[in-house]
Amino acid sequence: MIGRLNHVAIAVRDLAAATRTYAGALGAKVSAPQALPEHGVTVVFVELPNTKVELLEPLGASSPIARFLEKNPDGGMHHICYEVTDILAARDALKAAGARVIGDGTPKIGAHGKPVLFLHPKDFNGTLVELEQV
Amino acid sequence: MIGRLNHVAIAVRDLAAATRTYAGALGAKVSAPQALPEHGVTVVFVELPNTKVELLEPLGASSPIARFLEKNPDGGMHHICYEVTDILAARDALKAAGARVIGDGTPKIGAHGKPVLFLHPKDFNGTLVELEQV
Repeated sequence: MIGRLNHVAIAVRDLAAATRTYAGALGAKVSAPQALPEHGVTVVFVELPNTKVELLEPLGASSPIARFLEKNPDGGMHHICYEVTDILAARDALKAAGARVIGDGTPKIGAHGKPVLFLHPKDFNGTLVELEQV
Repeated sequence: MIGRLNHVAIAVRDLAAATRTYAGALGAKVSAPQALPEHGVTVVFVELPNTKVELLEPLGASSPIARFLEKNPDGGMHHICYEVTDILAARDALKAAGARVIGDGTPKIGAHGKPVLFLHPKDFNGTLVELEQV
């Protein structure tokens, strides 16, 4: 069912500093920051030859990564995103297998403008999994 | 400097159960388990079209992921591995940029039989970064 690894998301406290780390010390290509207020983050994309890493900084009072950064003050890997071709079929198969989908199971439009769902870390080895329909 | 995302490693408590999750519920291709006693883990490779995810279960008394699993009983994302073409040049550039390399800075032979180094999470947004020379 799952296809490509679309991205790994790393929550960071200071996006400018994290950008310097990736663009400077690690010598990667990093996009300009994009504020996504509807998702509560400002993001930059670290563009690797085969996939991307997203660096996420909290934006606004109800950022979904604020609590993660309280628990992980240095930042850390927040979620991993796999691509699927049919997100509703994926959701139904996962629910039938006993996995918990976060929220009411209705896909939302994610940061790339495509339907996404998040799966409960307790059912996926302590890892928050995002599915994105491509 | 960094090239492809070689793999994301997820530490798991029960490799057989994690394999069922990835091969079953998530419908991915998962390799047979390989015991790597010199690295203190048993690993399976989740083979995605563009990269791989490695599921790591502790092996032996001094497994490098045992303490991680004590802190994260459900498991979790343990490290991210980027490819480099010249690991000694990468090390020297990173040290010159002020980043800490774990250990004495001498590359070791990693789980894929290639030279690897690990970078300190404190210098990389709370994320343990592995560099692998390919």
